[in-house]
Amino acid sequence: MQLNEIGEFGLIDRIKEGALADPSDVVVGIGDDAAAYRPGPGLLQLITTDMLVESVHFLLDKTTPWQLGYKAIAVNLSDIAAMGGRPRQAVVSVGLPAHLSVEFVVELYDGMKEICREFAVNIIGGDTVSSPRGLVVNVAVTGEVAPARLLRRSGSRPGDLVVVTGTLGDSACGLDLLRLPGWDERAFAWPLVTAHLTPRPQVDTGLRLAPWGATSADDISDGLASEANEIAKAGGVGIRLYADRIPLSPELVEAAAIFGRQPLDYALFGGEDFELIFTIGPEHFDRITHRGGLTVIGEVTRREDGVVLVTGGAARPLEPRGYNHFR
Amino acid sequence: MQLNEIGEFGLIDRIKEGALADPSDVVVGIGDDAAAYRPGPGLLQLITTDMLVESVHFLLDKTTPWQLGYKAIAVNLSDIAAMGGRPRQAVVSVGLPAHLSVEFVVELYDGMKEICREFAVNIIGGDTVSSPRGLVVNVAVTGEVAPARLLRRSGSRPGDLVVVTGTLGDSACGLDLLRLPGWDERAFAWPLVTAHLTPRPQVDTGLRLAPWGATSADDISDGLASEANEIAKAGGVGIRLYADRIPLSPELVEAAAIFGRQPLDYALFGGEDFELIFTIGPEHFDRITHRGGLTVIGEVTRREDGVVLVTGGAARPLEPRGYNHFR
Repeated sequence: MQLNEIGEFGLIDRIKEGALADPSDVVVGIGDDAAAYRPGPGLLQLITTDMLVESVHFLLDKTTPWQLGYKAIAVNLSDIAAMGGRPRQAVVSVGLPAHLSVEFVVELYDGMKEICREFAVNIIGGDTVSSPRGLVVNVAVTGEVAPARLLRRSGSRPGDLVVVTGTLGDSACGLDLLRLPGWDERAFAWPLVTAHLTPRPQVDTGLRLAPWGATSADDISDGLASEANEIAKAGGVGIRLYADRIPLSPELVEAAAIFGRQPLDYALFGGEDFELIFTIGPEHFDRITHRGGLTVIGEVTRREDGVVLVTGGAARPLEPRGYNHFR
Repeated sequence: MQLNEIGEFGLIDRIKEGALADPSDVVVGIGDDAAAYRPGPGLLQLITTDMLVESVHFLLDKTTPWQLGYKAIAVNLSDIAAMGGRPRQAVVSVGLPAHLSVEFVVELYDGMKEICREFAVNIIGGDTVSSPRGLVVNVAVTGEVAPARLLRRSGSRPGDLVVVTGTLGDSACGLDLLRLPGWDERAFAWPLVTAHLTPRPQVDTGLRLAPWGATSADDISDGLASEANEIAKAGGVGIRLYADRIPLSPELVEAAAIFGRQPLDYALFGGEDFELIFTIGPEHFDRITHRGGLTVIGEVTRREDGVVLVTGGAARPLEPRGYNHFR
């Protein structure tokens, strides 16, 4: 069915269904001028927003609408996770080209609702408009956090360890694979492509960071080099990373060879991993070493030491290279 | 300066300045993964979002960036006003074509900051991405409202009066004027064009509606016919409007003649007025008749009476005509 056959209100009726994962705090959901919800007592509210633009952030022949919906929410949940918060309410704006089918849009929202159910997030409102020159999806998500559990980019202290979750670089290499004809015949490709198309935000780990004693945190959306510099700048500190400690998946190592690139380059400059990077005193980290999926990749130093990468004993400055902004 | 010279972070630094109109409740503003703010005790949170797409919602040769920024915030504040709330925090996403200048973007945000200052709203975060095929602006705004002061579209009762603020149809006629060469030589044009380019959200009136005793409210964004039907549907009631009571500006009456249209058509089907429509018991309205700018245009009836417009004694069904959705 074409969008112009169903109309805006018809579309909203289709979208509304299943949009509330946890209705208990929702007073007004989709369909009124604005949505209304009750924040918990003694909690801070977080809010974040991300826009995904066709042909910049996604290509419609490389992603399904379901995957795109999933990711549009995921990148926002990742921001809430990086603040130590619990994501709660989402509002979604979509700019839709007239040639899109209603089924496409319903699938897009199905992907959103799937990840929202997983993390108990409500879609409580939004805007649906026409966009003659390409699909645009904007999501804004609010979150809750107890004031004492708020984690910022600033707050790290010299002597803290630098820790990351998961493996890095998979998503960027997955994007390169997607552009390669026949990628899906290669056994190692799926985890990388999946990391790119439907990244899993580290909400559960984010909620534990402050109780563990973390001093700062960020999500890894623009590559490790960029995030390390962000944390150093925000905290007025230096950061020393060790190249041989940065966690790389075996699939990344195998796939990077196809493109004649170093796997580490994907981790440092690739972006869109949506893992977390955080800093924590060694005495606190000792108590969580039994947890899987955490890797110490370096330490916080003094500001004058700068942000450096140590490779084979030699330290060199590590500068971010934007790969996705205003290109 | 071109955007690719300044980079995303350079741009954010330019945008940050003056973004907080009322910092008292802001814990983290622009620049971290998400923003954080404290909602007041005993208050509900409202949230709304609107997307403006180039060539659908605005034409860059018909609006200045300042006006566009002003309007992008105004349409969201209007939604909060229609719920009886006080707008508080905004997050802004912009999708920017590479050919735009930095000055353009700074002016866009200056327009946003102007209206935000006027209504004590903070811009506490956002996203800046590239958009090769046209400018896109998305704003999400949160608001506060005491639970007992929340106003919905539903809640009206047969016997209530139907009241609107301001005059209707000016904005849609202003849009027609903008497309007419030489419009700015006509004395009556300015108020209409201004109503279209920089609409003033009725936040102050919205805050008073519940204390006055209003039973339902909506902002007039899609034309009076559409909003009357929305209120009737949400409340399970009918609505009877009187054509000769609908407030029209003298400028609209003069300008409509140029286009060979009835001024009333602009009010009924034109859209983007961002005035308020509300319902209220006659006994409550009697106490506020001394206030200017309010016009009783009809009354709430039983559901089976439908939504009708009375013209010269004859009542006919009043159906919405979308003018802006998925065209």
